[in-house]
Amino acid sequence: MGKRSPPYVLVAGSGEQTCTGRARHLAYEVGLELGKRRCIVVTGGLGGAMEAVCRGVKEAGGGPTVCILPGGEKSDANPFCDVVIPTGFGHARNLINVNTADAVIVIAGGVGTLSEASFAYLAGKAVVSLETSGGVAKEIAGRRLDPRRTETVKVAKTPAEAVEKALKSLRSG
Amino acid sequence: MGKRSPPYVLVAGSGEQTCTGRARHLAYEVGLELGKRRCIVVTGGLGGAMEAVCRGVKEAGGGPTVCILPGGEKSDANPFCDVVIPTGFGHARNLINVNTADAVIVIAGGVGTLSEASFAYLAGKAVVSLETSGGVAKEIAGRRLDPRRTETVKVAKTPAEAVEKALKSLRSG
Amino acid sequence: MGKRSPPYVLVAGSGEQTCTGRARHLAYEVGLELGKRRCIVVTGGLGGAMEAVCRGVKEAGGGPTVCILPGGEKSDANPFCDVVIPTGFGHARNLINVNTADAVIVIAGGVGTLSEASFAYLAGKAVVSLETSGGVAKEIAGRRLDPRRTETVKVAKTPAEAVEKALKSLRSG
Amino acid sequence: MGKRSPPYVLVAGSGEQTCTGRARHLAYEVGLELGKRRCIVVTGGLGGAMEAVCRGVKEAGGGPTVCILPGGEKSDANPFCDVVIPTGFGHARNLINVNTADAVIVIAGGVGTLSEASFAYLAGKAVVSLETSGGVAKEIAGRRLDPRRTETVKVAKTPAEAVEKALKSLRSG
Repeated sequence: MGKRSPPYVLVAGSGEQTCTGRARHLAYEVGLELGKRRCIVVTGGLGGAMEAVCRGVKEAGGGPTVCILPGGEKSDANPFCDVVIPTGFGHARNLINVNTADAVIVIAGGVGTLSEASFAYLAGKAVVSLETSGGVAKEIAGRRLDPRRTETVKVAKTPAEAVEKALKSLRSG
Repeated sequence: MGKRSPPYVLVAGSGEQTCTGRARHLAYEVGLELGKRRCIVVTGGLGGAMEAVCRGVKEAGGGPTVCILPGGEKSDANPFCDVVIPTGFGHARNLINVNTADAVIVIAGGVGTLSEASFAYLAGKAVVSLETSGGVAKEIAGRRLDPRRTETVKVAKTPAEAVEKALKSLRSG
Repeated sequence: MGKRSPPYVLVAGSGEQTCTGRARHLAYEVGLELGKRRCIVVTGGLGGAMEAVCRGVKEAGGGPTVCILPGGEKSDANPFCDVVIPTGFGHARNLINVNTADAVIVIAGGVGTLSEASFAYLAGKAVVSLETSGGVAKEIAGRRLDPRRTETVKVAKTPAEAVEKALKSLRSG
Repeated sequence: MGKRSPPYVLVAGSGEQTCTGRARHLAYEVGLELGKRRCIVVTGGLGGAMEAVCRGVKEAGGGPTVCILPGGEKSDANPFCDVVIPTGFGHARNLINVNTADAVIVIAGGVGTLSEASFAYLAGKAVVSLETSGGVAKEIAGRRLDPRRTETVKVAKTPAEAVEKALKSLRSG
């Protein structure tokens, strides 16, 4: 793809049922930043933090937002998805999200989000955790996900810092 | 997604090693037509007919081209892919291609292409075969892929007719 | 695995809704033969031909029957499954069936069965079609599934002949 | 499957490259216990803890050992696998392992093992961590993997206790 290809950033985080208002707002601001910087933003395509990120990207005039769904029906996607991939593979789509990403930003989230962070760490991709969003993001910020390795999950305090650290990892990577 | 969403058309066909010059040219012309009509074009992202379609879409000013790869590395994608999804799932990505599509156009191809046509037929999606391209497209044109069902694979003689029939199936579907 | 490993034979065919009484009986007899010969029998684990094969294997004192389900729940398996693998991957489990098999026997079936035959043919594994069972088995018997290749789907008239040809392909393969 | 079906226990842990001698021995003893109790033992089919568990099962006269491989080739399986499923789906096979299991025992391991524990926890299946084996098993023992939920990963000090707790979770589950 060479230098013409923009960076792909996966945002992993809470779904509709469990996303706090605070996590939603932080996700939206991460979306605004990613949209301004012309990233291809990858999410799991559902509600909560996933929807808030996509909304931010579109409001900033960015995109495309690429939404990789667990189910086989496009109608599950949130309204801010530009490209919808309904895999039909359930949580195994988390692995496709990670394969598609160059770096990952984690916002709040539970154990599904932890599986995405784990796969990204396993693949040697940068994982940046917005620790102020709570949930799994707070739990894993600054930690190693594998006791046999030395990298840590990067810590960000603000949406701008999360995006900055994700993109910086690509320039140095 | 409602009425804002453009149609997603999967083009399934021969890869780099086996694609004839004729099939390549027909695929390119299918790409031009799909690009003009503002479709989201889905392919398996590799060479041969897949690359020729994507090139046509981009030359017509269309896109995005969505390329769903069997392997886990983005670098396998052809240079005309706008959005690259490296699944790491091998031929199982054929099923994701089909789930992503609203209709399928078949150009030449072998047994891998037959698996995509089979999954699309199984899902009740329109399959249009460009019979003049040879290969599996010629074999299945006008036939039922399941002796227990009544639909047939639609037959097109030209790229324009293939695109017309694929889009018409969506209006009536 | 070496010489200790028994052959794995996939039987692909009609599900509960569409399986004729004739196809069911032929599948049962294929199961008896495979059970007597100490094969590991792989199926999609549901009803119809899949269940009849597994029943035959168990009545002949053979096994294990390995049943690879499309859904994520073990309770979908037929009662003659010894080892149940609920993949949660939908029709993509057809590819796992094929990867697990050393040879494939096709009994009746529709377009889902055609996708399994296609993947097996693509992987260069022997495909034996019990043509007297009807359906896709009858359609593909003796044919090439890829116009660019020379192998044909092998033709069997009886369950014993189907099993004989499947196992013979492994000895010579 | 009803009451005839034995429990399926997944053992997740370190692979060949990273498995300590201590973890290997503990895994072998877990295998002996599971073999005596007539469990169906599920592993990822490779070396290290996976191989040691399978060896234990077979030495105890148990089985079948069901080995679900990331790659598409049976030859990757360790020699103590009775049923080999070469998925070709890479790390996504971790999800199939979890779907196949009724309970999970974790022995040492790194971030790949963490992904399996995460998926099991997400599905509400009991996760028992043999904390004396080190690695991820030690890290997650007694912890919640999702800050929004109340269950903890169960803690075992010995192989016998790990098996006891895994099977007890099924009786009460």
